[in-house]
Amino acid sequence: MASSDDEYFMTIALAQASRGIGLTAPNPPVGAVIVKDGTVLGEGYHHRAGLPHAEIEALQDAMGSGHDVRGATAYVTLEPCSTKGRTQPCTRALIHAGISRVVYALHDPNPKHAGSADKLLRKEGIDVESGVLEEECSRLIRPFAKWITTGLPYVIAKVGQSLDGRLSRPPGESQNITSKAARDHAMQLRVRCDAILVGGETVRQDNPRLTLRGDDIPEEKNQPWRVVVTRSGSLPKKSHIFTDEFKKRTKVLKGDLSFEEILRELAKLDITCVLVEGGGNLLGQAFASRHVDECFWYLAPRVCGGGVMSVGGVAFPDGACSVELADVWHESLGDNFLIHGYPVWE
Amino acid sequence: MASSDDEYFMTIALAQASRGIGLTAPNPPVGAVIVKDGTVLGEGYHHRAGLPHAEIEALQDAMGSGHDVRGATAYVTLEPCSTKGRTQPCTRALIHAGISRVVYALHDPNPKHAGSADKLLRKEGIDVESGVLEEECSRLIRPFAKWITTGLPYVIAKVGQSLDGRLSRPPGESQNITSKAARDHAMQLRVRCDAILVGGETVRQDNPRLTLRGDDIPEEKNQPWRVVVTRSGSLPKKSHIFTDEFKKRTKVLKGDLSFEEILRELAKLDITCVLVEGGGNLLGQAFASRHVDECFWYLAPRVCGGGVMSVGGVAFPDGACSVELADVWHESLGDNFLIHGYPVWE
Repeated sequence: MASSDDEYFMTIALAQASRGIGLTAPNPPVGAVIVKDGTVLGEGYHHRAGLPHAEIEALQDAMGSGHDVRGATAYVTLEPCSTKGRTQPCTRALIHAGISRVVYALHDPNPKHAGSADKLLRKEGIDVESGVLEEECSRLIRPFAKWITTGLPYVIAKVGQSLDGRLSRPPGESQNITSKAARDHAMQLRVRCDAILVGGETVRQDNPRLTLRGDDIPEEKNQPWRVVVTRSGSLPKKSHIFTDEFKKRTKVLKGDLSFEEILRELAKLDITCVLVEGGGNLLGQAFASRHVDECFWYLAPRVCGGGVMSVGGVAFPDGACSVELADVWHESLGDNFLIHGYPVWE
Repeated sequence: MASSDDEYFMTIALAQASRGIGLTAPNPPVGAVIVKDGTVLGEGYHHRAGLPHAEIEALQDAMGSGHDVRGATAYVTLEPCSTKGRTQPCTRALIHAGISRVVYALHDPNPKHAGSADKLLRKEGIDVESGVLEEECSRLIRPFAKWITTGLPYVIAKVGQSLDGRLSRPPGESQNITSKAARDHAMQLRVRCDAILVGGETVRQDNPRLTLRGDDIPEEKNQPWRVVVTRSGSLPKKSHIFTDEFKKRTKVLKGDLSFEEILRELAKLDITCVLVEGGGNLLGQAFASRHVDECFWYLAPRVCGGGVMSVGGVAFPDGACSVELADVWHESLGDNFLIHGYPVWE
């Protein structure tokens, strides 16, 4: 039986897991804690694909401090892996360490592996409990879950617009629509993602850097891929993304690709999560393809009355649908607003 | 000297005044209370043009209850009128009633009259104080103040849209964008206004009633004018606005009118406050003309990806400007959001 203590320790594991957000592709972020007699002996999270999994980090943390982990409980945000990948299976490590109880939040989203750990661990006399903080932990691995089940990256749409849905202001005005607080917030979305996707027109018009900037970037975070989609292939060679220190992290997808084709190209680069930053045509294409999984909508208290629409398209094409967002929350960012939600595709 | 007691009683006067919002055109809403020895003897507000002003209502309320108002203080949200209009000047009534102190919030926004009351009242030995809760009370008469100083009605823009700035959903879906809670809230805007303005295409597409509906409509509120702007003049004769019980409250403005010309036509009907409900072209024209004074922006957590834009216009015309909203507040209406503000025209 799960107890409130279990939820308490799982919360600590979840906090550990969240430290790996955006760092672990194509693996999911996972956190773990080792607990004995109500005391946390060790904590850890998965830092990067190829490096130890969260359970191993937590066991090493506990044992490195001289603790005896035999008879302890391991809390993990995701079912421990039971097969050998780039590292040894975690179930084996837990068994060898003498762990007597394993509590995890979620089954492995890979249907081939889901529930396999239970059988292996129970065979060794280990208590197994699952489903603790399942919803909270499942949010964290939404990108991985989509990628492992569909082969396509998770798509986050970022829109920064005026109230009337415009991305641009009239000539002669500042070209910033949203406030610095909103732009700083949006920068954190790049940390979550393995790639930033923009249209060719955005590169031609704005010459964006698409880099990680500001004080809150985890040291371990690499520059995400910068992927430009362009029908014409005509992009200024002197653009920042082709000339700066991260130019090897820039990829151009040329041709008349559907949004799903674009996503398949990204999947080939082990990209599990992509941030679509615009322009309006690309965002329009993403929504029309019904492949957007999560939205961050930044609204400035401004009316433009013209200019580029945040989600392109005027007439509805055949079969068009609008989409409602679920689990919506919002917050104020200075005088800007953020509305967040998950599109519910019927 | 104004005291905190003065603010307290002015708050009561303000609450009275707010009962007249939308009822008094072309007069402003005004409230008054009569106070003696810290006790409210009478309260009143201006109900309708041609009926007694707030001061008279409050005096009658006090005297009708058998109170002796001699030596009392009158609190009024607006400078008492000193000239004879459709009714006798209020300054004279206050003097005759034996009021010994008059506290008001705002000078008359009509520059011809501003401050006239002070001189008249002081000549009779009455103490006069002004500026108490000035900001709060000035909000209430913004429509009147614009109308009396410019000859043009105050313009409230109401927009109900998807996140991406669309007024319409694809064929086959419900045509409601915003939630019932948002639409109910917007209904109260009609109470504030003397006219509702829509474009011809809105009448042709939606056949709206543009009436006052719901539980919170003041009994004294008349059906606002329903004004349709149409270049072609071609409107379905069976539309609700031409056939229902309020058909005499419908006016068609035909021809290629600028938004300022539209406002001048409305002013001729003693309209001091107009609510622009759409569609997107008319709202676009209103913003392009820089004549929008206040905005209510209702946002549904939905992405349409196409359809009618809430504020029409794609390319920026020469001299276009975007406009920021000031004094912005926002609130949740179920899962919809309302953002409110005042455009700051440079």
